[in-house]
Amino acid sequence: MEPYSRQASVRWSGTGQRSKSVAYKPNSALQMTPGSKGAGLKPMGVNPPELIAAAHAGSFALTLANVLAQAGYRPRQIDTTATVMMERVLKGWTLTQVHLDVTASVPKAAECDFVDAALQAKAHCPISRALNANISMRAKLAPNP
Amino acid sequence: MEPYSRQASVRWSGTGQRSKSVAYKPNSALQMTPGSKGAGLKPMGVNPPELIAAAHAGSFALTLANVLAQAGYRPRQIDTTATVMMERVLKGWTLTQVHLDVTASVPKAAECDFVDAALQAKAHCPISRALNANISMRAKLAPNP
Repeated sequence: MEPYSRQASVRWSGTGQRSKSVAYKPNSALQMTPGSKGAGLKPMGVNPPELIAAAHAGSFALTLANVLAQAGYRPRQIDTTATVMMERVLKGWTLTQVHLDVTASVPKAAECDFVDAALQAKAHCPISRALNANISMRAKLAPNP
Repeated sequence: MEPYSRQASVRWSGTGQRSKSVAYKPNSALQMTPGSKGAGLKPMGVNPPELIAAAHAGSFALTLANVLAQAGYRPRQIDTTATVMMERVLKGWTLTQVHLDVTASVPKAAECDFVDAALQAKAHCPISRALNANISMRAKLAPNP
């Protein structure tokens, strides 16, 4: 059976070190359908790899925002997409890899400092450390407006 | 800082080996709030440990249903709650443990065969294998109606 991948994206927004919001961009795992009366809203289905991608993207974005703040930067926005790769190996379907694709708007940051911060966040975020998987990353600064 | 835990629950329902449905029970990570117009519905916040719990409970339930079906049983319902424990260690917040609490309705199954199947599912489910964490479980059969 063919390998497959699942994605989730998170946008972190801040106006300095204090105020911030974090939201998942709509995607299939997190798109909701209204449930029956009284049951509230419920997810359309169970998709474990996509939930892992959402957890990883969220955890990475929060960690990167902290790392940047500790280095004295005031990130404005961090967009992270995590792609989880599932491959069929001897033991069955296995989560073999996560790729993080990161674009951030960080006023006054040099590309090299930003990439350092992103590498730190990739290594230290709780979900990176919880996963038995290769984790790759592409991180770049968005041009400041 | 004190350790904390996050939970998610999944109900798998089947009427044999073919027809089935899987749904998350409403909880905080998966409760949704209507987004602004055009954005659709979006989660109220980002909670990586709870998303990991949801992924693990879902993956475990699907795996257990398969293991039981392969052993010739026709499970009716599998309720799984995953509790993810986060502890602050030297490297920072760390996902140290997941506890799976499983209750299933499986006609004609003996308790010992069911527990064997649950142990297999715990060992082999893709998310169990993807996590660097101790995984514990309590599995029991629900009385058949």
